[in-house]
Amino acid sequence: MSQPLRLGIAGLGTVGTGVVKIIRQKAALLAERSGRRIEISAVSARTREKDRGVSLTGYAWEDDPVTLATRDDVDVFVELMGGSDGPAKAAVEAALKAGKDVVTANKAMLAHHGQSLAVMAEASGAVLRFEAAVAGGIPVIKALTEGLAGNEIERVMGVMNGTCNYILTRMEDGGLSYDEAFAEADGLGYLEADPTLDVGGIDAGHKLSLLAAIAFGTQVDFGSVELEGIGSVSIEDIRQAADMGFKIKLLGVARMTGRGLEQSMAPCLVPASSPLGQLQGGTNMVVIEGDQVGQIVMRGAGAGEGPTASAVMGDVMDIARGLRVSTFGRPAGALARAVPAKVSTPAPYYLRMALVDKPGALAKVAAALGEAGVSIHRMRQYDHVDESAPVLIVTHRTTRTALDQALAAMQGTGVVLDSPVALRIEEV
Amino acid sequence: MSQPLRLGIAGLGTVGTGVVKIIRQKAALLAERSGRRIEISAVSARTREKDRGVSLTGYAWEDDPVTLATRDDVDVFVELMGGSDGPAKAAVEAALKAGKDVVTANKAMLAHHGQSLAVMAEASGAVLRFEAAVAGGIPVIKALTEGLAGNEIERVMGVMNGTCNYILTRMEDGGLSYDEAFAEADGLGYLEADPTLDVGGIDAGHKLSLLAAIAFGTQVDFGSVELEGIGSVSIEDIRQAADMGFKIKLLGVARMTGRGLEQSMAPCLVPASSPLGQLQGGTNMVVIEGDQVGQIVMRGAGAGEGPTASAVMGDVMDIARGLRVSTFGRPAGALARAVPAKVSTPAPYYLRMALVDKPGALAKVAAALGEAGVSIHRMRQYDHVDESAPVLIVTHRTTRTALDQALAAMQGTGVVLDSPVALRIEEV
Repeated sequence: MSQPLRLGIAGLGTVGTGVVKIIRQKAALLAERSGRRIEISAVSARTREKDRGVSLTGYAWEDDPVTLATRDDVDVFVELMGGSDGPAKAAVEAALKAGKDVVTANKAMLAHHGQSLAVMAEASGAVLRFEAAVAGGIPVIKALTEGLAGNEIERVMGVMNGTCNYILTRMEDGGLSYDEAFAEADGLGYLEADPTLDVGGIDAGHKLSLLAAIAFGTQVDFGSVELEGIGSVSIEDIRQAADMGFKIKLLGVARMTGRGLEQSMAPCLVPASSPLGQLQGGTNMVVIEGDQVGQIVMRGAGAGEGPTASAVMGDVMDIARGLRVSTFGRPAGALARAVPAKVSTPAPYYLRMALVDKPGALAKVAAALGEAGVSIHRMRQYDHVDESAPVLIVTHRTTRTALDQALAAMQGTGVVLDSPVALRIEEV
Repeated sequence: MSQPLRLGIAGLGTVGTGVVKIIRQKAALLAERSGRRIEISAVSARTREKDRGVSLTGYAWEDDPVTLATRDDVDVFVELMGGSDGPAKAAVEAALKAGKDVVTANKAMLAHHGQSLAVMAEASGAVLRFEAAVAGGIPVIKALTEGLAGNEIERVMGVMNGTCNYILTRMEDGGLSYDEAFAEADGLGYLEADPTLDVGGIDAGHKLSLLAAIAFGTQVDFGSVELEGIGSVSIEDIRQAADMGFKIKLLGVARMTGRGLEQSMAPCLVPASSPLGQLQGGTNMVVIEGDQVGQIVMRGAGAGEGPTASAVMGDVMDIARGLRVSTFGRPAGALARAVPAKVSTPAPYYLRMALVDKPGALAKVAAALGEAGVSIHRMRQYDHVDESAPVLIVTHRTTRTALDQALAAMQGTGVVLDSPVALRIEEV
């Protein structure tokens, strides 16, 4: 058997503790599978004195993660602290510069600094892996980077924030309002300290930007992800969508088009009978479409100690086995700067609006759509509420540009009350 | 860039041709991703003169795959001929003995000779990969061997024969009898030359035995897979199952128990609302359950040129990138001889039988179950047909042994007409 692989682990929260447990409890199994003993040389965390339910005996302690990352007895630096900048980034950079391999679960750091870290890794010959950063326990980075490496990827989609999917599922199943479902999720401890990371789509957007980089060979470009949170999704929309055979999901979609890279993380309608439509609660799902393989769907837990630690260990085991793949599946220098494109691949759209309850109002709306070249697939006017007439429209495929033009023209007619809701129907 | 990786491809059917096309059409992409040019040195097939829709110019031709496999200008032997023995096995053995890496889609060969081939590969330091042998384009071998390498695997399940799932789906959706659905699948060219490979569960059983070897670290033991085809599934059972919220699938299940390794490939009931229950038509699905990751579900095309070629190329790209994992995820010598166990993990069962239409018949059946310790969860007697009274029973969890004892006792009472149908309900 070869030399042991020696880890330095920074961050001993749920995931870090989970990793330590696996390494302690499955030592023989891991050694048999990888051909090397997996050992922990040193650990680091904010607080040393704390009962984490696992013994840290035999591991050196470092207060400073940078010092940990560059220790002579550390082959792989495992970064589980989190935070896009600050100590996590400093320690990862120090490790890479010192030629240490790095395994991280830090989506925010990679979404913001993925390219520079990939360049740094390449310069020193280090490997930087991040399976745990996307969709928890689902080995999707591996599938996309390695298993499907013979494909040109056409589209990547994902429901990758379990908290949002939980909230949307509870609104649908439990008939809760957004605020009620949000409060329930909060009570269960599902929300990040800054909840906009979840419900604003930022966390899921980070993940999408990483998948897009691998899929399309572009530098990570989180800044260009069109982000729309779930705060504007109403129980009314969920009901109406369900009535027409759809579910509303916070769906990430990335595709390369002739105009550039489209990346969006927004509430979308998907067919209720599709795998994405059937996804309930906190589970994650990633859909990859390749020119050879067709559609691959992967489903599993997107968070939690076990699943995330499983992903971290997958990366550690790969390194132990000698796998050395470029960070985003190609040399950092070969990653093109993404040309961001506004989402404009034609799609059907779901529209909901309230009209003034006067003759001719609906005709004006229909005219505004027609003039912008948006044709109507289904339209439904339903029970009046006070003085307003709620209207639902499903369009045929149209571009977002044409739709926005129609929406602007509608607003000009004076018959539309409030802002219409417009959600893309993603064809899956 | 490193030296090119030179392939010798034996077998130029749909999959082989698909691989050649990918290598010709995506040369730059593959080189960028793997860091090496992927080249074809030589090819071999039964017939040289045949329009395969792709140029073979520039590749040496070998009539004998063994000669091809051992050519000096071949680094990786790609075996796409099929057949568990004969030329495929001879050529793969020759390649491995010569220290050439091998990529194959040949599930039958691996199911029968996986252990000896793994030993052979290890002896010469060669790598033997077979992603395309299981579930077509779904990168499930990679997920199980690498991505989930930090888990103890608890259960592996799969719907892995698209033809069977197509037939069952058509029986359900189209109300066809088994014979009608079989004839339809045959007309569409979905069946193997020997259809028992499909409908007898043999092909899917081969795949299950390979997954089990990786999951549980045991030598491939196809001979111990309990095989039951779909020929005995009636439209009546499909309807009754649906009525109770279940679907019938040809489901492979492997789990390690205290008694040994259980492997079964048999028609089972699964909840209609589960991912397995929702699987329609020819699509494949594999479910992996690990102690850390929980349940991972993977879904995609299980056959066809593009998906299978995608899987072959995933293996080729791994080799180009320098990944060298043991055939079944551990050294061949570390794979334990499987201790096969009859499927006896307690499960609920679905029973359908016809009773003589006489007072006391049902009581005798109930008594037979009770005496064997099998308790009844639901029982339903439905419309009489001629002189017989059809009865449906769903049991609580019981072992197959207790159930068989009850079934034997029932037969002894003389009230049961024909053989009762007994299908396991797999809890997923």
